[in-house]
Amino acid sequence: MPLPAHVVAGKGEFLIDGSFGITLKGYQEARLERAEQRFLETLSRETGIPLWREAVLNQPHFMIQTVGPSAPVQQLGENESYHLEVSTTDVQLTAANPIGVLRGLQTLLQLVRVTPRGFSVPVVRIDDEPRFPWRGLLIDSGHRFVPISALKRNLDGMEAVKLNVFHWRFADNQGFHVESKTFPRLQEKGAGGFYYSQDEVREIIAYARDRGIRVVPEFDMPCHTASWFLGYPDLASDQDPSRSSAMDPTRESTYKFLGGFISEMAALFPDSYFHAGGDECDVKEWEGNPRIQEFMRARGIKDGAALQVLFTTKIQKIVASQNKIMMGWDEVLQPDTPRDVVIQSWRGAETLAEAGRKGYRSVLSSGYYIDLNQSAAEHYLVDPLGAAAATLTADERALVLGGEATMWTDIVSHENMDNRIWPRTAAIAERLWSPQQIQDVDSMYRRLAIVSRKLGYYGLRHRLITDEMLQRMSGDPDPVPLRVLASVVQPPRLYERQQLRTFTDSTPLNHLDDAVPPESETAREFNEIAKRIASGKATPQDWQQAREWLVLWRDNDAKLQPLLQRSYLTQDLAPVSRNLFQVAQIGLQALEDLKEHRLVSPDARQRNIEFLTLASKPQAVLLLMVAPSVELLVQATSTK
Amino acid sequence: MPLPAHVVAGKGEFLIDGSFGITLKGYQEARLERAEQRFLETLSRETGIPLWREAVLNQPHFMIQTVGPSAPVQQLGENESYHLEVSTTDVQLTAANPIGVLRGLQTLLQLVRVTPRGFSVPVVRIDDEPRFPWRGLLIDSGHRFVPISALKRNLDGMEAVKLNVFHWRFADNQGFHVESKTFPRLQEKGAGGFYYSQDEVREIIAYARDRGIRVVPEFDMPCHTASWFLGYPDLASDQDPSRSSAMDPTRESTYKFLGGFISEMAALFPDSYFHAGGDECDVKEWEGNPRIQEFMRARGIKDGAALQVLFTTKIQKIVASQNKIMMGWDEVLQPDTPRDVVIQSWRGAETLAEAGRKGYRSVLSSGYYIDLNQSAAEHYLVDPLGAAAATLTADERALVLGGEATMWTDIVSHENMDNRIWPRTAAIAERLWSPQQIQDVDSMYRRLAIVSRKLGYYGLRHRLITDEMLQRMSGDPDPVPLRVLASVVQPPRLYERQQLRTFTDSTPLNHLDDAVPPESETAREFNEIAKRIASGKATPQDWQQAREWLVLWRDNDAKLQPLLQRSYLTQDLAPVSRNLFQVAQIGLQALEDLKEHRLVSPDARQRNIEFLTLASKPQAVLLLMVAPSVELLVQATSTK
Repeated sequence: MPLPAHVVAGKGEFLIDGSFGITLKGYQEARLERAEQRFLETLSRETGIPLWREAVLNQPHFMIQTVGPSAPVQQLGENESYHLEVSTTDVQLTAANPIGVLRGLQTLLQLVRVTPRGFSVPVVRIDDEPRFPWRGLLIDSGHRFVPISALKRNLDGMEAVKLNVFHWRFADNQGFHVESKTFPRLQEKGAGGFYYSQDEVREIIAYARDRGIRVVPEFDMPCHTASWFLGYPDLASDQDPSRSSAMDPTRESTYKFLGGFISEMAALFPDSYFHAGGDECDVKEWEGNPRIQEFMRARGIKDGAALQVLFTTKIQKIVASQNKIMMGWDEVLQPDTPRDVVIQSWRGAETLAEAGRKGYRSVLSSGYYIDLNQSAAEHYLVDPLGAAAATLTADERALVLGGEATMWTDIVSHENMDNRIWPRTAAIAERLWSPQQIQDVDSMYRRLAIVSRKLGYYGLRHRLITDEMLQRMSGDPDPVPLRVLASVVQPPRLYERQQLRTFTDSTPLNHLDDAVPPESETAREFNEIAKRIASGKATPQDWQQAREWLVLWRDNDAKLQPLLQRSYLTQDLAPVSRNLFQVAQIGLQALEDLKEHRLVSPDARQRNIEFLTLASKPQAVLLLMVAPSVELLVQATSTK
Repeated sequence: MPLPAHVVAGKGEFLIDGSFGITLKGYQEARLERAEQRFLETLSRETGIPLWREAVLNQPHFMIQTVGPSAPVQQLGENESYHLEVSTTDVQLTAANPIGVLRGLQTLLQLVRVTPRGFSVPVVRIDDEPRFPWRGLLIDSGHRFVPISALKRNLDGMEAVKLNVFHWRFADNQGFHVESKTFPRLQEKGAGGFYYSQDEVREIIAYARDRGIRVVPEFDMPCHTASWFLGYPDLASDQDPSRSSAMDPTRESTYKFLGGFISEMAALFPDSYFHAGGDECDVKEWEGNPRIQEFMRARGIKDGAALQVLFTTKIQKIVASQNKIMMGWDEVLQPDTPRDVVIQSWRGAETLAEAGRKGYRSVLSSGYYIDLNQSAAEHYLVDPLGAAAATLTADERALVLGGEATMWTDIVSHENMDNRIWPRTAAIAERLWSPQQIQDVDSMYRRLAIVSRKLGYYGLRHRLITDEMLQRMSGDPDPVPLRVLASVVQPPRLYERQQLRTFTDSTPLNHLDDAVPPESETAREFNEIAKRIASGKATPQDWQQAREWLVLWRDNDAKLQPLLQRSYLTQDLAPVSRNLFQVAQIGLQALEDLKEHRLVSPDARQRNIEFLTLASKPQAVLLLMVAPSVELLVQATSTK
């Protein structure tokens, strides 16, 4: 995952044992040696077989042929293709440049599995290349600081699923988290003590380059900028900077400052693209300011949006003067926006189509907001060339560069971030890499479970977080019944969670809706079974599994209630647990009715459906995901 | 854990919330500030509440009073006492020096629990100090290289349970893993590519000092030294260095080399103690060598052991010339051993008593070999002043400095090391810190479970390893039935494991006996219940729990067998799983017989006992730990 473009499966397998070896042929560079070393380390972790480079050089069963170098600074659209051929006796990987080699190595790691003969790779022939050249993950270090270690492991995960753009966002109203040497008060006053030094930034850029990943920085402006004003209050629109979150676009001093700042950052970040934000400007701050009103009147600027175009145009010129291409959120797409600005669509797929029709290049993020707790399937089925973009001409479609998953940190911390990013981002990565016609959701989920496990070998913590947080919440080293409840609930989707719970910047994120993954695996599987039972297509194993789960859930409440009372973090889960008990009871009854073809009383059936509808609504900021599935079962029963 | 020396419990609790703050009073140093920062970070991880030092300084509810500094280089026997007082409104920690503060901070962290009101610490007054001044953990980087990250997290764990000596062993026949600038061929030829640079050594020493931990280096000599000879063959006794594992004690050049080497290492490691090994010399290598025979004859040295005394005496002089005190394994205790050598007893407690009677200081490791898969209770009940040492006079007893748990890496890698070290080492730490009369095993296990969970907040991986390895072995992201089997088996104790399985330096340690912890928690609890049932003291919950477990184990085999066949790492577990099935069946029958007071056929009873005895023997290098408990149940039934 992502599935390669062309796969020809063969017969047999290539065994991996202590004599496994690699030879690098053709073009050589240190990055390739490091990639080889990293590959062997990951393979060792995955198999438990000690593999050292020295031991390995004697018996090379794995030949890597690199034709030539890639660009000194990784460019959009560089060749990432590779050819991988596995026979029972050896493995051959060929690529035009080191980036292709990196991609092929990850494919090979994903092919490793354990069989009755040993750890092995199936005989196969793969020709692969990406569908889109821009396949990104945004990590927001603006709302909350994200430690270097968390960034690194997520870059490892990005490499594993062949993402190639790390969109790194540094500032928001809450904080300014990178070192400026030109304007040091930015981090001194705006960072709350946590910021990346320029050396750390360079370390991350090198780390990313080693993995074939570009780093595109974002400095969001002119809004979301309250943290800038702590050190440089003159940038603010309002005379009282503490009441302002928008820069003043009317003053020359603003552009002088930004000219200096952008030139410093353009030198720090070697990538050709520079993201200048531009989203969610509350134009009222300008329109309500007499001084700015006067400025607009004098120049015939009709409203705040038009004022932002003026700002964007000036920023674009500064960015261009640094030989960079500007990128912005979809709000920057206005009648006079310079043509080479790349539009990142977040409010809807329509803006992406609009950008294409107007001749702008674009990147899709709408539909890939992984902080919003949607299912992997939902993200998977969003295609950059689907929806409104499907009507574009071939030339216009070529302007759609790809997409980016976005990990916003308003209400996610670096502690639980991994379980929001993974494994669902692997499904988005497949959408962006693999051929468009690959759309089978069941196949995706099957493979996602395997990839999710493998991502653990890269140090990602997504599969560990929930249990650690449940132990903390309960104070119990082995909170079995809480784990059962946690396995069938989810945080509400989209923006509903924020409506149900008050979040401030210092809210502890240690509740069950922080702990559980965005998608309940158990509930999804139970739902599949319930659908098969309701439609008369269930196997005997389906019936048994459904019964086992329902019994487990029914009997769980009695064990869980005393545990819940012991901690302030679990007390409000009591009604959720009771609901699960009742839902399971109804489910068991329905199961029996269906099995025995028993006719049920219409009244009782109706009462059950009403209860299940109620139980499907959020409680304690959680959705009881099995309630709708039990409703399917009840709906399938017949009345007297 | 370890339990403090004096505790007076009060009423009420001190709540920890976002306004929690610390003030450092009295003596100040950077180490205290770092300790404060680390304390807040751990507390944040433990509670999920964001705690930043800046935010915190406004409202100090926690006062730390440090009277004065500790020694520039931490010394044996430095004051580690502290006084901790928790009221409902604030916390006071007082100590003579920063080391005492470190100890008190860990006590406070252990007191944090979650209650219906929030995260809190109970009101309490504690006066605490250690029983022994030498409380160590040996990590063997000689057999296998242990990465810096693994050392650091284990140093964190040591701090958590108030251990104060990291005994770091660098070389063995298998490898020489530290950088010598004087004799660089040691690591160039002997390290297999993996060694600690001197900068890394200094980093670890500083890291340990920050945690109140001394670093005592060990360079084992004159034996276990084959890896030295790869770079410096002249050191070897045998003319063919590849056949030699003992240094030549007859050549002046050997002492010249060691003089240079020890002086380099004595400068690198600031601690006053220097461990020169001395264990397990196969004296036949000397006694069978004509040149060495001649040397011995000429000087009237009667055997190899006496020759080692000559070596030890010379090394002791070299060590003493560097102003260090030499330490050695108990073999170095010979008639003429210099009196200030500290004896580390590993072959038995008797040598420790003997050392005491002869006026030598000593450290106990016999009984604390955590690589040998004994239970926490076994280690817990070994007392440095118990057994043979109990007969020592008061003066002689004062020579017993403490003890050291030993993590040998012959057949443990850095991957599964944490689950060998933790949590059992916490029980040893309690033995060495807490008053001698604290001996309650049940209380120890109850507290050990809590500490084990808390150690996870220090980054220790002991509770994660088993499941990761089971997933790898099976290739299944959620191998439920394999987990059930794994929960009731253990690797054989002491040296039996090595007899049942062939290990070389490159043996992959990825089997089930590598994966499971040394002590099965489930089997231990089941055994307690079986004992209560057999003796007629069981509660209804005991009966129910026993039945639930036995049903789970009986039904597990059918689910597990197909999974086992899929991987070469699990195929040999098939008979173990079948045994569990049969043991559980017998157990369920016995449970019913006991409940109904049914008389059973003597023949059937005898057959069952014979089967259970057989099932208690190792299979696939694993002990089925519940078989003896089921035998208790069968033994408790009455025959017709």
